[in-house]
Amino acid sequence: MTTSASNVAEILATLRIRQPLVHNITNYVVMNFTANALLALGASPIMAHAVEEVEELVDISGALVINIGTLSKPWIEAMFKAGVHARSRHVPVVLDPVGAGASRLRTDTARELLRRVRPTIVRGNASEILALGGGVGGAHGVDTQHTVAQARQAAVTLARTYGMTVAVTGPEDYVTDGRREARVRNGHARMARVTGTGCAATAVTGAFVAVAPDCFQAAVAALVVFGLAGEWAAQHAQYAGSYGIALLDGLDAITPDNVRKDAKFDVAEVVEK
Amino acid sequence: MTTSASNVAEILATLRIRQPLVHNITNYVVMNFTANALLALGASPIMAHAVEEVEELVDISGALVINIGTLSKPWIEAMFKAGVHARSRHVPVVLDPVGAGASRLRTDTARELLRRVRPTIVRGNASEILALGGGVGGAHGVDTQHTVAQARQAAVTLARTYGMTVAVTGPEDYVTDGRREARVRNGHARMARVTGTGCAATAVTGAFVAVAPDCFQAAVAALVVFGLAGEWAAQHAQYAGSYGIALLDGLDAITPDNVRKDAKFDVAEVVEK
Amino acid sequence: MTTSASNVAEILATLRIRQPLVHNITNYVVMNFTANALLALGASPIMAHAVEEVEELVDISGALVINIGTLSKPWIEAMFKAGVHARSRHVPVVLDPVGAGASRLRTDTARELLRRVRPTIVRGNASEILALGGGVGGAHGVDTQHTVAQARQAAVTLARTYGMTVAVTGPEDYVTDGRREARVRNGHARMARVTGTGCAATAVTGAFVAVAPDCFQAAVAALVVFGLAGEWAAQHAQYAGSYGIALLDGLDAITPDNVRKDAKFDVAEVVEK
Repeated sequence: MTTSASNVAEILATLRIRQPLVHNITNYVVMNFTANALLALGASPIMAHAVEEVEELVDISGALVINIGTLSKPWIEAMFKAGVHARSRHVPVVLDPVGAGASRLRTDTARELLRRVRPTIVRGNASEILALGGGVGGAHGVDTQHTVAQARQAAVTLARTYGMTVAVTGPEDYVTDGRREARVRNGHARMARVTGTGCAATAVTGAFVAVAPDCFQAAVAALVVFGLAGEWAAQHAQYAGSYGIALLDGLDAITPDNVRKDAKFDVAEVVEK
Repeated sequence: MTTSASNVAEILATLRIRQPLVHNITNYVVMNFTANALLALGASPIMAHAVEEVEELVDISGALVINIGTLSKPWIEAMFKAGVHARSRHVPVVLDPVGAGASRLRTDTARELLRRVRPTIVRGNASEILALGGGVGGAHGVDTQHTVAQARQAAVTLARTYGMTVAVTGPEDYVTDGRREARVRNGHARMARVTGTGCAATAVTGAFVAVAPDCFQAAVAALVVFGLAGEWAAQHAQYAGSYGIALLDGLDAITPDNVRKDAKFDVAEVVEK
Repeated sequence: MTTSASNVAEILATLRIRQPLVHNITNYVVMNFTANALLALGASPIMAHAVEEVEELVDISGALVINIGTLSKPWIEAMFKAGVHARSRHVPVVLDPVGAGASRLRTDTARELLRRVRPTIVRGNASEILALGGGVGGAHGVDTQHTVAQARQAAVTLARTYGMTVAVTGPEDYVTDGRREARVRNGHARMARVTGTGCAATAVTGAFVAVAPDCFQAAVAALVVFGLAGEWAAQHAQYAGSYGIALLDGLDAITPDNVRKDAKFDVAEVVEK
């Protein structure tokens, strides 16, 4: 199956029509921002973490997003319960391993989620993907210390090991399902100045995978559209605070036509080096 | 007692002078947004959920707002403790049954809060009010699947059963205390593109009921002013992200004179059909 | 050691180069806003509260910020664990005693944190500092009921008792380490219309103390830069919602040259009255 700018544009158009419900078990810092990102994009967010209700909410959702940014024991329990249930019901699961590599709790929880939930897509920065894939990894909190290129092999290995799509975001994003790989060049450096842009990219990926059957295509489409929103925002806001708001505006403003015109990505077969 | 645009304008003027303290036990997603809505309006928010302190904070507050948007066991315990205490001290309680109908936990908690706390005002969307009043209700997360008109009878019945005011918000808002009913036509469709606008309407209702002895009037006044803020925002912001910020600006910008000039609502006796 | 506008400008320049990691155990309401404040300023925020990971994250952080704005038992445990560990590793600790005086839980927790953690810097409003220092204190939620001048003696006494720097913010800020005192006149009245500006000032203080060895200077520098951001914002936004965003923009926009030109503060020896 090819992945072209037209495919991405069509997936966005479908998303806007179907307005998928995306269930998020995410961190306190970004809940408001990611809910607004989903609404601005055209999806419908629900945030819920009680073990008593996560299964019911998964049942009515088009995707489940699990984000480990502010972990604690009761939330970890809910993530596993919701994740396992989602997979049993064929609801796609997107994992954001925020800060994997920065603490044992985060690294261990993320790895255990890979093993027991087997997410459909993982989206992280280079340090996080390295921490999941090997032994090295991030050591400066939640911001990456590695380049996307450094994480490429770990991404391919993870994708093959778990049969999933891995998205590594950075100045240029890298997406692979172990067989295909894409490099997405949409986006803007200012995105790193706003908290939760990575988390919002993950949430948006949840909305795309809820409407696109090909997970690799869904991840590429999400990062193209999110990157275009970031470019749109850079034309409207110079400083960090208003840039974050403009990024939400961009998710609202970007149309399938914008995607056809401005999407910047390449897809290829994974070639072993 | 009549409810005119002048009444609403006077209540707003009183609120701005008295700056009531509003105690919120609310969900993680909207805490920042609703605190900012209360501050922008001219009230003083406090967010607190520890069972050890909720009673003390109720004692110094003009109203208590309970919002079940991200429930869990310890929070439910705090909601009951604060709610029962508030009623015993004649502090008005406003309930937002976010997602009632979408999970048993939410539906059961909201109904139990009605029974044991007997809120002064309940503010929800049509699906949530239907879920509280009967057996049907929301099934698509936290966004409504029903029209306000469909929820009218449930609202009247709930208001009479519990001796409270019920506000159903939507394209046109409906408010009833079982005897009187109001239809509020202020507002803008863009409000549904921002997370927490319903929750903010509930918090703002808390500020109004803290200064207006007539609960029905307080709910009408809150929805008129909130709707006017939404209209103001629509003149200043086109896209979802900046619209949310402009809505806060609108709560700050709207004056009693704006209310006298632009309030759009009708009040009537409830007529059985 | 003197503290001049040039010192403050140099500390800001250092902060922008070193981009210190600031670990925050803070309240739900302001997590997003304070993380964005730190990013906009040029620091790197991490929010984490699990007892299983706080020590590891302290080890990689330049400062720890503890904010008691939405307390509960598990969070209190994490605050003590992280705080005691930080002091043992010589990582500076900044405490924000949000709402001290408004409930016993808050007052007792804040006082116990002073005793057992011995923070490097405490930043609060006048009511909170009075509640920590004596018996009187805030009684209207989280907003101050006292003037900064009323809290001066309590601040000096607290600073000497615990060997720390105390910052009292208000229309004019007051900073003392028990020997020196500073009055900072940067800032704008509109800052009080946005939730979490005090909390953001505390977080920003964490970033400054991570790079400035003199804690008194760090606190003065933080409040000067934060106040200048507030002034910058007042030139760009009239109403509460957009003012909060413009405040973040201001933290991004303010340069060391702006500091040299517009810093408004005096430093003196503490003279007993």
